[in-house]
Amino acid sequence: MPFVRIDWFPGRTLEQKRELIDVLTREICRIAVCRPETVNFIFTEVERDDWGRAGKLFVDEYEYENEPAAQ
Amino acid sequence: MPFVRIDWFPGRTLEQKRELIDVLTREICRIAVCRPETVNFIFTEVERDDWGRAGKLFVDEYEYENEPAAQ
Amino acid sequence: MPFVRIDWFPGRTLEQKRELIDVLTREICRIAVCRPETVNFIFTEVERDDWGRAGKLFVDEYEYENEPAAQ
Amino acid sequence: MPFVRIDWFPGRTLEQKRELIDVLTREICRIAVCRPETVNFIFTEVERDDWGRAGKLFVDEYEYENEPAAQ
Amino acid sequence: MPFVRIDWFPGRTLEQKRELIDVLTREICRIAVCRPETVNFIFTEVERDDWGRAGKLFVDEYEYENEPAAQ
Amino acid sequence: MPFVRIDWFPGRTLEQKRELIDVLTREICRIAVCRPETVNFIFTEVERDDWGRAGKLFVDEYEYENEPAAQ
Repeated sequence: MPFVRIDWFPGRTLEQKRELIDVLTREICRIAVCRPETVNFIFTEVERDDWGRAGKLFVDEYEYENEPAAQ
Repeated sequence: MPFVRIDWFPGRTLEQKRELIDVLTREICRIAVCRPETVNFIFTEVERDDWGRAGKLFVDEYEYENEPAAQ
Repeated sequence: MPFVRIDWFPGRTLEQKRELIDVLTREICRIAVCRPETVNFIFTEVERDDWGRAGKLFVDEYEYENEPAAQ
Repeated sequence: MPFVRIDWFPGRTLEQKRELIDVLTREICRIAVCRPETVNFIFTEVERDDWGRAGKLFVDEYEYENEPAAQ
Repeated sequence: MPFVRIDWFPGRTLEQKRELIDVLTREICRIAVCRPETVNFIFTEVERDDWGRAGKLFVDEYEYENEPAAQ
Repeated sequence: MPFVRIDWFPGRTLEQKRELIDVLTREICRIAVCRPETVNFIFTEVERDDWGRAGKLFVDEYEYENEPAAQ
């Protein structure tokens, strides 16, 4: 009965989300031994001015994460 | 001291949310025995391309949920 | 597709949770117009020394909430 | 390894979030004894018609919270 | 910067969690294009008398999910 | 109306939580301009075998976080 939530920066495409939910559901069912119908996903986009680490917002830490998908 | 969070698809009206928080707070207080002032609600809308089940996003599963409120 | 989470103090019985999920699901479906199979619930118990308000833990605020179920 | 989430009404400025994450991270590390690099923050804005208490949405309770920042 | 939370029934072993976080992190990084150091996981066990669907707690729905791992 | 949730490793004392909620509520109210009665806190302890980063559970990464409070 896994319920999966993924918070991430904006920028992922519909195609990436489609592949993610397909692949991750399959791997979860294989490893945790459950049926695909019981696996739910919710993706939540969090802007860089609403997310921070080490006392700084990511919007102020340009170098932190070099993600092609988010450029 | 119940704190209630409801994630759902977009499409509910202010009137539906008003009735929901009113009725659900009353029922929670009656059944769980608490005072209305202690019951908090947060509603969060999740788009169909950010929510999925069984390895598929709901945006790709047209028939999944036939909800008049969401048409 | 409502997903409902309720955080509350420990002390509710199985019977109270049974009635709550039954009644709340029915009211949510009636008001938000959805099918019962799409409504999920998760209850989470939070101890009074892990919950607070106004700068104080509830464990230190004896009078705050007079709940028969939690006595 | 604290992971901090703050839900609040919209209206806080980037400057307020910057100061909050800076000050709160420092206080958390001082009191809970951890390193700043392990402290994560996510801020989430919740509109007044998606948040309620005591059976009412905050959008319908004009007097409830007199917050200069939210005017 | 994905932050992943998985709620599920109790019963998974340390070995299953180890394999899951390893495999899922790799797939997330491959598909969403990010670095492994930015992917966090939190697993939360939810008992069958705290989780329900369609107006019933899972503890009362013996047949619902036939999971070898949870037997 | 800030609602604050902090997930962390087990090991903090009641005294640390008392000081945290007191100090953080005061700083949040000062910076975000709100009244203390509107600030809620929930602390959640997450074990090291339920939390991971970079493809590994923290229980397998002995050196990761040198926290006196958690020893």
